Amino acid sequence: MDDPFNAFCDHAVVHIDGASDGPLSGLTFAAKDLFDVADYRTGGGNPDWLMTHPPADRHAAAVETLLSAGATLVGKTHTDELSRGIFGENPHYGTPVNPKAENRLPGGSSSGSAVAVAAGMVDFAIGTDTGGSVRAPASFCGLYGVRPTHDRLPLDGVLGQSPSFDTVGWFAREAELFARIGAVMFAVDIPDYTPDCLVIASDVFAAADDDAAAALKPAVERLSAAVGVSEWRSICPEGLDTWFGHQTTLQSRESWLTFSDWIDENNPRFGFEVSELLLRGAALTDERVLEAKEAQLQIVSHMATILSPETFLCLPTTPFVAPRRGQARSAINKSRGRVISMTCIAGLLGAPQISLPLGEVDGIPLGVSLIGPRGSDEQLLGFARRLAATGD
Amino acid sequence: MDDPFNAFCDHAVVHIDGASDGPLSGLTFAAKDLFDVADYRTGGGNPDWLMTHPPADRHAAAVETLLSAGATLVGKTHTDELSRGIFGENPHYGTPVNPKAENRLPGGSSSGSAVAVAAGMVDFAIGTDTGGSVRAPASFCGLYGVRPTHDRLPLDGVLGQSPSFDTVGWFAREAELFARIGAVMFAVDIPDYTPDCLVIASDVFAAADDDAAAALKPAVERLSAAVGVSEWRSICPEGLDTWFGHQTTLQSRESWLTFSDWIDENNPRFGFEVSELLLRGAALTDERVLEAKEAQLQIVSHMATILSPETFLCLPTTPFVAPRRGQARSAINKSRGRVISMTCIAGLLGAPQISLPLGEVDGIPLGVSLIGPRGSDEQLLGFARRLAATGD
Repeated sequence: MDDPFNAFCDHAVVHIDGASDGPLSGLTFAAKDLFDVADYRTGGGNPDWLMTHPPADRHAAAVETLLSAGATLVGKTHTDELSRGIFGENPHYGTPVNPKAENRLPGGSSSGSAVAVAAGMVDFAIGTDTGGSVRAPASFCGLYGVRPTHDRLPLDGVLGQSPSFDTVGWFAREAELFARIGAVMFAVDIPDYTPDCLVIASDVFAAADDDAAAALKPAVERLSAAVGVSEWRSICPEGLDTWFGHQTTLQSRESWLTFSDWIDENNPRFGFEVSELLLRGAALTDERVLEAKEAQLQIVSHMATILSPETFLCLPTTPFVAPRRGQARSAINKSRGRVISMTCIAGLLGAPQISLPLGEVDGIPLGVSLIGPRGSDEQLLGFARRLAATGD
Repeated sequence: MDDPFNAFCDHAVVHIDGASDGPLSGLTFAAKDLFDVADYRTGGGNPDWLMTHPPADRHAAAVETLLSAGATLVGKTHTDELSRGIFGENPHYGTPVNPKAENRLPGGSSSGSAVAVAAGMVDFAIGTDTGGSVRAPASFCGLYGVRPTHDRLPLDGVLGQSPSFDTVGWFAREAELFARIGAVMFAVDIPDYTPDCLVIASDVFAAADDDAAAALKPAVERLSAAVGVSEWRSICPEGLDTWFGHQTTLQSRESWLTFSDWIDENNPRFGFEVSELLLRGAALTDERVLEAKEAQLQIVSHMATILSPETFLCLPTTPFVAPRRGQARSAINKSRGRVISMTCIAGLLGAPQISLPLGEVDGIPLGVSLIGPRGSDEQLLGFARRLAATGD
């Protein structure tokens, strides 16, 4: 397959036809190279992981579900190394090109999946989202993207990173298909839906760049109008940086536990950045991890007072459009922190979040997000579809 | 060139004839890929360093000196990444094979230079020694190897790491040539020499594995007899671990300062181990560095009372023979600390050290070392040659 945007992995040239009659028959999809595909090795964005693991003996659960529903798998896609990254940079295989802004990063870690969908090479693609790895590239590539309720979809056959945060998500260009995939993945009907109230997170919008916040204003007004009842309010009394710190602490510790034995055994090659992220996890004290865990419980309690069952929270998916390619690590580090200070909210709550491609700054896409209560995945998808269908 | 031990860099297939009449005419040598060779890129053991630097516009000073003295350069040799390593492991280019023990590590970071000499592919080779990078592979590959007095030889055209510790050294199979190279490099005559006294570092021998210490006993007796006057004494009141800590602190800080801008700009790929070493330097406080610097001055004063002008210090070069290949990072980490707790002594003093291939454990080589006062390089070489020539 011609791959002008470097979305696909050369090491797994895959084509597996889906079942002939199913709700997704006739559609093509790609899977991030964290999902097992039988008889292929899962590379996880790192050549030493690829080299030290045997071919998978079965498909990942999500891949199996989609094939059974009729979708045809046409490739495995690039990812940040071991899903540690939010911008899609990969020094081994090259950073996929953002089809909507070719001098900018695609977002990650589900970079290749987002790029393949944005470039129209597949109808949809699956990725994983631990700290923002579907939502950020959805925002940067102008796609619908979902991080489901944590623990709602099985992670069997997925190269996991941080069990308390890992989720399986997907990208689509249109809300109808976006919801249809959800119906298959969750095995539920997805009726149209409108929440009772929209809470617009004023402090999260304030943390975005001015041009980004301004660019999302029409989308926010459209969402408010579609819901009918909305209020602006600040959601994070401690400041987003504090929440970011807790999420990073918990994810870093788990990620280190996941990979440390393999690293010890293999001394793998990583981009410097990824080693630094991993070593931050290694350096954490138990006290700090416990503190973050307790803070997470308090955040969950606090947000339960805001996010009542029929309420969605509205926030920018990312605080800016896709950053330019080729920036120094120090600049990228700061930008990463700013993205994750927004994506950490759903992560800490275990709540579902969808990013909708409703904004742009100077022609470059930017997503607006809705977070619903845990388990409200189908309501989020049903609302996004209704919104798109009615043009509300 | 056929390279069964993976000593040479594929990216620089070099052959430069030496001057036709010189003290080294007719001899071949190799240079660690930290030395510039005009029109070739210096790779420093890292593909991203190679990729981000242009070809050298002139030869390194040491290369120029040797070519002018008649030696012919036949290749550039593998190194640990950016010379950060003591065992020769390189995940990008593969770890060179120790010709004296093929299932064991060659030592590093001047790994390929030592291997090329040990395999008889060249007559001699140059390397660098910052924390032990000539001495360790000399010990492990059964060669003569020297770390000269710090600052005595120019580092022009060398990819430096830690200016306070970087030196240019070399390997040879025989003491006569070993000294002859020194005469060229230092531009001096090297007469035979015998020190007035040999101090045998009892605490350093005690820190070696039992079989290693036992294996070096005949060599120590031979050296003692050749000198005539010798005494066993403990040299390190604080314990070798403390000295190792100071040396590592100072080297780590300097190494980080050397590479941090380039790392920030390029997010290069490293084996995990090397990133970890670099990040230790990044994490050091100024207080800790100052403390180490002050400790170094005290160590220099203390050792001046032991190492009087006509005295050599005798110690094991390494506390064990070459470690087995393929060990886990955690095991390698411990072993590295033990090696550097011995090699740090000359480093902290800025003093010259030669490793002599006079021991072996079960057929595997092990070096014994002599450290002389600063500036005594030619005395060390003259003594090694006399010892070999007389069979004393």
